[in-house]
Amino acid sequence: MKKPLILVTNDDGITAPGIRELIDIMNGIGEVYVVAPDKPQSGMGHAVTIHSTLRVEKIIIDKGPQKEWACSGTPVDCVKLAMDQLLPRKPDLCVSGINHGSNSSINVIYSGTMSAAIEGGIEGIPSVGFSLCDFSYSADFKSSRKYIELIVKNVLDNPMPEGVVLNVNIPKAEEKELKGIKICRQANALWEEEFDKRIDPKGKTYYWMTGKWVNHDKGDDTDEWALDNNYISIVPVRFDLTAYHALEKIKQWNFII
Amino acid sequence: MKKPLILVTNDDGITAPGIRELIDIMNGIGEVYVVAPDKPQSGMGHAVTIHSTLRVEKIIIDKGPQKEWACSGTPVDCVKLAMDQLLPRKPDLCVSGINHGSNSSINVIYSGTMSAAIEGGIEGIPSVGFSLCDFSYSADFKSSRKYIELIVKNVLDNPMPEGVVLNVNIPKAEEKELKGIKICRQANALWEEEFDKRIDPKGKTYYWMTGKWVNHDKGDDTDEWALDNNYISIVPVRFDLTAYHALEKIKQWNFII
Repeated sequence: MKKPLILVTNDDGITAPGIRELIDIMNGIGEVYVVAPDKPQSGMGHAVTIHSTLRVEKIIIDKGPQKEWACSGTPVDCVKLAMDQLLPRKPDLCVSGINHGSNSSINVIYSGTMSAAIEGGIEGIPSVGFSLCDFSYSADFKSSRKYIELIVKNVLDNPMPEGVVLNVNIPKAEEKELKGIKICRQANALWEEEFDKRIDPKGKTYYWMTGKWVNHDKGDDTDEWALDNNYISIVPVRFDLTAYHALEKIKQWNFII
Repeated sequence: MKKPLILVTNDDGITAPGIRELIDIMNGIGEVYVVAPDKPQSGMGHAVTIHSTLRVEKIIIDKGPQKEWACSGTPVDCVKLAMDQLLPRKPDLCVSGINHGSNSSINVIYSGTMSAAIEGGIEGIPSVGFSLCDFSYSADFKSSRKYIELIVKNVLDNPMPEGVVLNVNIPKAEEKELKGIKICRQANALWEEEFDKRIDPKGKTYYWMTGKWVNHDKGDDTDEWALDNNYISIVPVRFDLTAYHALEKIKQWNFII
C-alpha cells in the first residue's frame, strides 16, 4: 500500500519538542513533509501575512527521513505555502502540534496550532490539532504517543465529516494515568483578562496581558471535564461559523427601512 | 434615557475612513469609546499579543465627542484592553469596522475586524462587525449609513441570542441601488492561493500571497448571494466551534487502545 502523505506544522516553531515528537510519530505512519514557523507563533489565531513577504528555508534538524521547511509566516501561512508551493501533491492528512499548552474550549479560537489544522480542513485535507496541557518546554510528549497513533489511524481509515477538523487535547499525566479518549463538545469557558500595567524606564505606560481561566460549564460532556478527569478530549470543530439556531430569531427583528 | 456605552474598534487602524464613519454614526446613538489599532492589522484573525508588551495612547483625531485610544496590538487586544483598563464600565455594544473590504463567507475567520466583534461576544457584549465590499481607501461609506443605524437599533432593542455576534457585509453600491437586508448563512467559499514567487536583489527567494476567490455555493440563502444581489447580508456567527452534527459519527470510530 502507498504511504499516506502527511503535512506537519505547529505554532511553537519548528524546533519545539512537541513538533519533533509529532514528526517522529508520523514518520512511522507515512511520508512526512514539515512546513512550520521559524519562530514561536503562539496566539496568532488564524492570522495570515497579506501586507508583507514570506520566506521558506529548507532545513535539516535531525536524521529524518522527513523533509522540512522553516517558514517566516504564521501557522496558517505555512499550510497555504505548503499546499501551493512545497508539497508534491495534496496531502492525505494535516497534523498540527503537539502544542505546548492546552487548546481546549475557547482557546481553539486564539490558537495558531488549531488555526493551522482548521486551514487544512478549509482546503479539504483531513486535519487534526494536538495539544498537551503542559506549557513546559520539557513536557512529557511521550505519554500519549499510542493515543496519537490511534487517532491518526482512525482519521486515515474513516471519512472525516465534511467541514470538520479535530481538536485533540491531552491531559498532563503519566501514561498509566491516562483513562482513554472522550469525544466532547467545547466547554463554555473563557479568559478573564487582567492586564499588568507597568512603567518603562522612560516613564511611559505599557501593559502585559495576563488573565485567569474561568470555566462556567458544569457539563460532563465537555473537553474541560474530560481533561480534568485524565481523558484525552477530541472536539470535532467546524469552520462554518453560522449560528443556525439564531437565524429565525434574527429574521424576526425589524429590518424594514 | 441613559445613552448606551459603545466600544468602537476595527482592523484597518484608527485613522481609516471606515472607522471614522462608524464613529460618526455611533456618536448619534450613544457615548462612544474608541480603542483601535494604531496601524493596519488586516488579516490578523483572532491573534493576541502574549509574548510582548502593549501600548495605548489617548489621542484626538477630530472634534469628537468620542474618547479615543490608539493601541499597538491586534484588534482582539484592543477589545481586551478596553474592557479591563479603559472603559468606565462594560459596554452595551461593541461595533467593529467599517472594514475596507468584504468579510463574507470564510473571510470571517481571517478577519481582524470580525475577530474583534467575536471577542466582544465572548466577553458577553452584544457585538457587530461591519464591512463594505470595497477595498478602496476612498470607498463610499455613506451609502449604507441608515442601514447601519437600523441594525444597531435592533441590536440595542432586542436580546442578542447567547453566543452569537453579527457579521454584516455591505455591497459596493450606491444608496439607491441597495435593496435591503438579508439574514444569511455563511457561503461555502474559499481562497485558492497562488503564491507569487520572486527573487530578491541578493538572489534569494521570497513569496507574496495572492489568490482567487472561489464560491462553490449555489444557494440563494448565503451572504455571497445577498451581496451579489445588492442586499446587505447579516450572518449570525457563533464561537462555540463544536461540530455537533459530527459528534455521533466520530463516537463510532474505534478508540479502544
